[in-house]
Amino acid sequence: MDSAATEPQLTEPYLTTVLSNSGLGVEYVRGEGNTLFHVGADGKEIPVTDYCGGYASLILGHNNAELTAHAKAVLDSGIPVYAQFSRHSAANRLAVKLNEIVARETGATEPYFAHFASTGAEAIETAVKQAEFDRVLKASALMSEIEAHVEQARRAAREGHLTVADSAYGKVPAPASPATAAGSPQEALEHLVAAVTRHNGEVADRPPALLALEGSFHGKLMGSVQLTHNSGFRSAFGRLGAQAHFVPPNQPDVLTKTVEGIRAQGRVLDVVVTDGVADVVERDYPVFCAFLLEPIQGEGGIRVLDREAAEHIQRVSAEADCPLLIDEIQTGLGRTGAFLASSLVGLRGDYYVLSKSLGGGIAKSSVVLVHQKRYRGEFELVHSSTFAKDGFSTAVALKVVELLEADDGAAYRQVEERGEMLRAALDRVRADYPEVVKDTRGKGLLQGLEFHDQSGSAAPTISSAAQGGILGYVAAGYLLGAHRVRVLPTASAPNTLRFAPSLHLTQEETDQLEAALRDLCSLFRDEDERRLTG
Amino acid sequence: MDSAATEPQLTEPYLTTVLSNSGLGVEYVRGEGNTLFHVGADGKEIPVTDYCGGYASLILGHNNAELTAHAKAVLDSGIPVYAQFSRHSAANRLAVKLNEIVARETGATEPYFAHFASTGAEAIETAVKQAEFDRVLKASALMSEIEAHVEQARRAAREGHLTVADSAYGKVPAPASPATAAGSPQEALEHLVAAVTRHNGEVADRPPALLALEGSFHGKLMGSVQLTHNSGFRSAFGRLGAQAHFVPPNQPDVLTKTVEGIRAQGRVLDVVVTDGVADVVERDYPVFCAFLLEPIQGEGGIRVLDREAAEHIQRVSAEADCPLLIDEIQTGLGRTGAFLASSLVGLRGDYYVLSKSLGGGIAKSSVVLVHQKRYRGEFELVHSSTFAKDGFSTAVALKVVELLEADDGAAYRQVEERGEMLRAALDRVRADYPEVVKDTRGKGLLQGLEFHDQSGSAAPTISSAAQGGILGYVAAGYLLGAHRVRVLPTASAPNTLRFAPSLHLTQEETDQLEAALRDLCSLFRDEDERRLTG
Repeated sequence: MDSAATEPQLTEPYLTTVLSNSGLGVEYVRGEGNTLFHVGADGKEIPVTDYCGGYASLILGHNNAELTAHAKAVLDSGIPVYAQFSRHSAANRLAVKLNEIVARETGATEPYFAHFASTGAEAIETAVKQAEFDRVLKASALMSEIEAHVEQARRAAREGHLTVADSAYGKVPAPASPATAAGSPQEALEHLVAAVTRHNGEVADRPPALLALEGSFHGKLMGSVQLTHNSGFRSAFGRLGAQAHFVPPNQPDVLTKTVEGIRAQGRVLDVVVTDGVADVVERDYPVFCAFLLEPIQGEGGIRVLDREAAEHIQRVSAEADCPLLIDEIQTGLGRTGAFLASSLVGLRGDYYVLSKSLGGGIAKSSVVLVHQKRYRGEFELVHSSTFAKDGFSTAVALKVVELLEADDGAAYRQVEERGEMLRAALDRVRADYPEVVKDTRGKGLLQGLEFHDQSGSAAPTISSAAQGGILGYVAAGYLLGAHRVRVLPTASAPNTLRFAPSLHLTQEETDQLEAALRDLCSLFRDEDERRLTG
Repeated sequence: MDSAATEPQLTEPYLTTVLSNSGLGVEYVRGEGNTLFHVGADGKEIPVTDYCGGYASLILGHNNAELTAHAKAVLDSGIPVYAQFSRHSAANRLAVKLNEIVARETGATEPYFAHFASTGAEAIETAVKQAEFDRVLKASALMSEIEAHVEQARRAAREGHLTVADSAYGKVPAPASPATAAGSPQEALEHLVAAVTRHNGEVADRPPALLALEGSFHGKLMGSVQLTHNSGFRSAFGRLGAQAHFVPPNQPDVLTKTVEGIRAQGRVLDVVVTDGVADVVERDYPVFCAFLLEPIQGEGGIRVLDREAAEHIQRVSAEADCPLLIDEIQTGLGRTGAFLASSLVGLRGDYYVLSKSLGGGIAKSSVVLVHQKRYRGEFELVHSSTFAKDGFSTAVALKVVELLEADDGAAYRQVEERGEMLRAALDRVRADYPEVVKDTRGKGLLQGLEFHDQSGSAAPTISSAAQGGILGYVAAGYLLGAHRVRVLPTASAPNTLRFAPSLHLTQEETDQLEAALRDLCSLFRDEDERRLTG
């Protein structure tokens, strides 16, 4: 690696400096299970216990031996990796398998159709596009229906069988007042129709309603970044994509009111003829594209959606006919002890999005599952991606699901058990350092530990880090340097450390973490600048 | 594969039916070089010569032996695939190598910084986001400058040193007319400032100007699909992302006028004090986010951008300070005989986007190269992706570049030579069937053959396919079934077949293609329904 030292830094030079300054700029040369290795000055490997787990994409660990062997066998088999626009029975087998699991965990009786993509953010955008496609087709059908009613009324007016109800004019926006309708019934009708058409056109032109929770993270591409709550990630790009309505997760009234407000502004007008009298009636317009939801907000600070909030969201969305898009990118694939974390709180999605661990820590794979009632086959001709549904990542993903499902779901039970072990360690630290640790939370092997605000610390490194919103990175640098434990804060809640190890987590690794956190907490408690920077 | 027959179709059921109906619904079980194999009724492999080449992602062929061996070695080495937020020297090595190549081909003397992603569409969106980030920061700096000028003027007014030039009012939009400014110089100034601030706020609120060519294809994600010209792909999703201005590739006047129009509407107002007199001056505002450009439009029908058009675009963009984003996803990595197809017509990009063949037909990789003068280091803290810059795809991509560059660029010379062989065959078919073949065009191993409109054919299958815009698919079905040649039309120009084989293309394979195309053309010429459907 000597040449690296003399090479200019042409990838992320800024981040590289940030990493170096916070003691995180090491290079890992090997990974196995929960361990990453870097090379010390003496040329020897230094093991680090990794709680980042590839940003929670490694439920089966770094370089899982069975997956690696499988991946190599796939490469040896010579199956085509890229053969677009042909039959892919392995992809279908994966879709069938995922359907079986979803049915088992949620009780769903109708199928979900699968669209493949390559990354989590791509799958989110594919799901939103399919939801918007469905919405636009529904809207178009409704508009055609209204047009047909208008034609009916026109026919009746031409035949002299029509009068316009006086009450009709009060139901359309100005300038179609009764005064303008002094002429014949035909003229009266046309005035009304013009006002109806104008109003309906305005409603149809509006961007769709996209709902997401405060604290949400659904990706960082041009569209998906607008569904990610953190304004630091989002605001500079606000002119590139449709904006979302963000609602707080635990204030049901706010959600109800937001949804009602959107519905109320999203009504179109129809012209209905009854017994020769034309009147105007309001119709619900499909304004809702999707409500995006993480069962546990990962980047938002390991915030668990509780059953009550889940039920409320489910009910409100159903009433408003707003498709529920459940983002299981970080929580799915067994991470919380079930295949779908949302199933643990009784949530039922119109869409499920999976990625991260679906690639097994080797490949890049993601999938959108679309409930039959929302599915539009024509979307398949409109949306595609060169790298999606490829032979390699599909074969790896199939193997991942097989490993998770083996032995009647032993993996899920193992996640639950190791998760409890991990959580117990975090809770002990919290109990012993209540002045430093504010909260511990999570499910299975997705756990968080939140620090109290340390911006008043007498240790300048601690207080300035806390004030600058980078306390978690300073903690991470210390844990790595002093304890060979790799952990990082969540992206949007930098006072919360995330723990997302693989299901191979051992008692020994957990003990190491506990000791490391105890040391860190004592250092925070004692405001010990010297120990932190020494 | 018996279970497949009894399984429900849960991935793309609609497309599966379309494929079956057009004779394209075969399943390929093995790939090697330019050959894909499916299994016949007798259980034996049937070889098919593949000109689709993974939608041009296989410049080195299906399951290239050296790449497969390398990928297996990478898996064996145990390097971490996902170790985000740490040093990645292999990624940097790739960035350095790509810089060397870009400098060699374009003469660039300043570096390009690399951002990695996983797919072409992701890289396009990453590039547009970085361009927008740069634009927003520039805009913000300009606005701060104007605010400072306003504060200067206010100070002067408070100190009684200021008058407002009468001419100033004519330069701001109503309602800040001189009539409203009858009061003190301070009041006069505030009226002016209010009008200036309102105008500037309106300009700043507008979406950025994104330019792309008619016929363009830059992806299908929420944002990138709006940069893809084909309205069938784009229009249903128009309310999800910022809209682009599409200009024709070969009408320089239209481009000049479009750019001038955008600039004219994108001027902000500044308040300048000279010798105690405040006046209003117009300032250019950074309205342009990016101009996206393919050196050869792949999905648009293999349309080659000529040197003259390239020069005009380069000049107009430079004058308007509009960053040029060159999409080399399909054309890069040697596809046209140079690493960058754009370098063959003298184009110099502010951004280059590479993907497809960068993954070597195994991995999923993409990269954005950002010229130093446009680069914003802070973007690295705002944008990220779990799967980007991973150890596996980076190692594969490095090997791909190494294979292309080996032996002083023997691969590029081979592409040129095999490309000429392929093109000569297509040209012979065109010469012998001028009533069927309208055009042949392309560069290197990215070639197209366009049919004349066949909607008047006496053969009902031909005429109805032509009328329905699926002539290319009917041709593809015939070539596959009758000649074991796999070829598909381009996505947005379905009368044009695309040929994008690997650099291993042989004379024998080319002869097979030529014979197949001759048969197809004779069938189109003879309007021979029976032979087509038989």
